[in-house]
Amino acid sequence: MGIYAVTGAASGMGKASADRLREAGHTVIGIDLTEGDVVADLSTPDGRSTAIRTTLRLAENRLDGVVLAAGLGPVPGKETTIAHVNVRGVVDLLEAWRPALAATGNSKVVVFGSNSVSTVPVVPKPIVKAFLAGELDKGVRWARRIPMAGAIFTYAASKIAVTHWVRRTAVTTEWAGAGIRLNVLAPGAIATPLLDAQLDSADGDRVRNFPVPLGGFGEPGRIAEWVEFMLSPAADFLSGSVVVVDGGTEAFFRATDWPRPVPLRKLPAYGWAMWRFNARKR
Amino acid sequence: MGIYAVTGAASGMGKASADRLREAGHTVIGIDLTEGDVVADLSTPDGRSTAIRTTLRLAENRLDGVVLAAGLGPVPGKETTIAHVNVRGVVDLLEAWRPALAATGNSKVVVFGSNSVSTVPVVPKPIVKAFLAGELDKGVRWARRIPMAGAIFTYAASKIAVTHWVRRTAVTTEWAGAGIRLNVLAPGAIATPLLDAQLDSADGDRVRNFPVPLGGFGEPGRIAEWVEFMLSPAADFLSGSVVVVDGGTEAFFRATDWPRPVPLRKLPAYGWAMWRFNARKR
Repeated sequence: MGIYAVTGAASGMGKASADRLREAGHTVIGIDLTEGDVVADLSTPDGRSTAIRTTLRLAENRLDGVVLAAGLGPVPGKETTIAHVNVRGVVDLLEAWRPALAATGNSKVVVFGSNSVSTVPVVPKPIVKAFLAGELDKGVRWARRIPMAGAIFTYAASKIAVTHWVRRTAVTTEWAGAGIRLNVLAPGAIATPLLDAQLDSADGDRVRNFPVPLGGFGEPGRIAEWVEFMLSPAADFLSGSVVVVDGGTEAFFRATDWPRPVPLRKLPAYGWAMWRFNARKR
Repeated sequence: MGIYAVTGAASGMGKASADRLREAGHTVIGIDLTEGDVVADLSTPDGRSTAIRTTLRLAENRLDGVVLAAGLGPVPGKETTIAHVNVRGVVDLLEAWRPALAATGNSKVVVFGSNSVSTVPVVPKPIVKAFLAGELDKGVRWARRIPMAGAIFTYAASKIAVTHWVRRTAVTTEWAGAGIRLNVLAPGAIATPLLDAQLDSADGDRVRNFPVPLGGFGEPGRIAEWVEFMLSPAADFLSGSVVVVDGGTEAFFRATDWPRPVPLRKLPAYGWAMWRFNARKR
């Protein structure tokens, strides 16, 4: 049995994941804003620092896995908090916990993404770029310039930023090379308190009319099964993947946009990446 | 316990999947070229017809799921067989089995794709297009014009074609609307007889030098766990997804190429798709 840290463990998919791991006999360190083994506000540097240190102490510096489920939805007016929790609440924690994850030799990380990364249209690149560069307030200022949609773009950009960060980071010697499997689980509309709040808001109809080919919403308990599976030995060969569980929404909008072959213009970068990879093996 | 049909059930990942499903107590109808419950050559229309009819008879026209694992790797000189087995051996069978899958109300299909769909560079679009249009020989003629790489391009194009077919088909009323979950499992280099043959061939060094950030090759038994999971109730909200299990190769080459937001030029098509979806609900 392993030791797992779970952020956002007090509600929704984070709670369902923590419950499921505990039922399977694992030790879970639950982190959340107002209750749990670690109480910390991931929207502030101090809160993240508390979450990092307390978790490492409780885990005795050894983690078999981490689930990053804490996150805010596209709540208007909350753009700054969305960016800080959804981006820094993932990247800062993982960077600080990397040695503890490497210590167990074969560890797994599941970061909650979202299918909105490929189904929300025309998310401006500068917001994602600012988030990835650590310039969160700059990104949020950019998003807020967009009338009516500042929160949606902040949210989608925050999830694109962490998803790209996971994919770029997962394959490095510091992570894959240290036996850490870093992957993204990207749910669609799942029946959680976060979704209920969206359905009750002015955005409710937009959420209800968003196409879900299988119909209805997903269940948090089912998503927790994916989390448990992606932390299990079955996922030993999983790295940098984005697993979309969304009732078919992403395929509905983007069926033939991806997967796609490497285009001709990217052939030099492709060859260079291959050369570098093999050079580092020698 | 369910009734599952598995193509390519005599070796590699197909065999591992069939074995695992049987061990879990399910009824498996194994289909392969020279041995199994159904002996059929999926490279010919007659063979596919035999596979379709015999399976339906054995399953009494009710299928809880299907695993499409039969496939050829990029074997030079075998281009025509690759195209027919990898494309028609999936699409023809699934189209014929659709009513049997719909009959159980909640059924699941796992199609074996490959991470080569996004990691093999510059696969010519006309080959994929010809394969999707049912013009297999035209596609193969196109691929054979490419010196040294006809088999690789035929193989990659065959997997792109079935992957796009799955994603487009999964979300329709005939499939998602009938409770059929259609998804792709896209492995990287897995230790199978197919991979051994590639390692022993003139292409051996190319395969050995292909970057795998986690190192080594995947195990067929682990892939079988993914298949079982993607056929389980945990996958009730999975539709049109491509699950890449490849040791990090795809993320290594394509980290920031995907996921990506819907671009501006596709906004009209996006709005139109959304409108149509909601119109069909009314």
